[in-house]
Amino acid sequence: MRDAYHEELDSIGDGLVEMARLVGSAIGRATTAMLDSDLKLAENVIEADQKVDELQHDLEAKAIALLARQQPVATDLRIVVTSLRMSADLERSGDLAQHVAKLARLRYPDRAVPSDLHATILEMGQLAQRLMAKAAEVIITKDVDLALQLEQDDDEMDLLHRTLFQHLMDDRWKHGIETAVDVTLLGRYYERFADHAVSVAKRVVYLVTGEHADELQTDAQPEIQGVSGALSGASGAESA
Amino acid sequence: MRDAYHEELDSIGDGLVEMARLVGSAIGRATTAMLDSDLKLAENVIEADQKVDELQHDLEAKAIALLARQQPVATDLRIVVTSLRMSADLERSGDLAQHVAKLARLRYPDRAVPSDLHATILEMGQLAQRLMAKAAEVIITKDVDLALQLEQDDDEMDLLHRTLFQHLMDDRWKHGIETAVDVTLLGRYYERFADHAVSVAKRVVYLVTGEHADELQTDAQPEIQGVSGALSGASGAESA
Repeated sequence: MRDAYHEELDSIGDGLVEMARLVGSAIGRATTAMLDSDLKLAENVIEADQKVDELQHDLEAKAIALLARQQPVATDLRIVVTSLRMSADLERSGDLAQHVAKLARLRYPDRAVPSDLHATILEMGQLAQRLMAKAAEVIITKDVDLALQLEQDDDEMDLLHRTLFQHLMDDRWKHGIETAVDVTLLGRYYERFADHAVSVAKRVVYLVTGEHADELQTDAQPEIQGVSGALSGASGAESA
Repeated sequence: MRDAYHEELDSIGDGLVEMARLVGSAIGRATTAMLDSDLKLAENVIEADQKVDELQHDLEAKAIALLARQQPVATDLRIVVTSLRMSADLERSGDLAQHVAKLARLRYPDRAVPSDLHATILEMGQLAQRLMAKAAEVIITKDVDLALQLEQDDDEMDLLHRTLFQHLMDDRWKHGIETAVDVTLLGRYYERFADHAVSVAKRVVYLVTGEHADELQTDAQPEIQGVSGALSGASGAESA
């Protein structure tokens, strides 16, 4: 009986890792679709999100069945409840990748991202994908140091987000309002995606140590100044 | 023993209602702070979000303790797990109200919202507050019809969001890029807030009927055309 039980618990963990891999791949492909204005790839990403939603449903059904049948306590209970939260983070990350792909589809055959922002958006997309790959690794290895590293990577995302805002607010911005709106939303999608990856990693830390990740980190965050900083600061508060 | 158990279950429900009331009030006050450029009110909203976070922590601790000690099955188990999800929706709604207040603070003493968009933003803020008030009522009454009504109210939010985009995309837009960025983010905050209120109501429907709200509704959504529609459509997909 206990063996079947731990198999079920493992299978929930496997489901989380699969979800993380799918949404990591989705954000990478959505970014490519956006930058290349590749309609087929965009539609592919949009459709593929269904698989993520199905995985989440399966995982939740398994978790609830396990709670009902096995009535875990202490650590095992915490694992199951935390898995439910991680699956919500991952499902939401999938939606955000889908939003990027939908914006690519909406602007096709045009490109939503002007060429002078191409490099920044590419970096944001790649960083988002790396963050999620690390989150998957954290789920597998339960490596607390790696998990804490994700928060530093997330600072990089905030920096990229600020670069994006600096471009937008620059008097020399010449791409008009529609593109400004697109870039604003894109920036937010990537930032939120990164927040969810960090959140997944933090939840693993909590599982392993029983402490919230924030309490394990003593590095003070540098004060952010100025307009775009305050915006980044505002949204940065979300990852807490 | 069973009495204490049902008291605990009730107290989780009370916590959810209190969270919904706090975040409903927060989005209303944040909107006022934004439209009046009232710094004190903005700071008040920003600080008050801590109370919402505390309520969520309490509620989660109670839910997990209840799972461990009472090991509920069937309906009661579903109630506890669903309550955890609702509290996550409500906590996130509080963050979004806080984002609105932070934008008000950032632009103070200026107003983030130009006067020709004042009425639309006011409507969005009021609608968001009403949606959350209804969500609280749904938690208390478990009224499925009222819950389904929230989805129709959310269509109104989508309409307002589209109006906002139409203003932004209008060639006569004269408020510059910074304001366009602010308005884009604001629109998204209100829309997401509404999505979370709808989500809370849907989860109650699921608890009461065992069916997902989408399966109870047969009204087809009207097809949305055009640029802002496609954007609304993209984000509208999130509430599903």
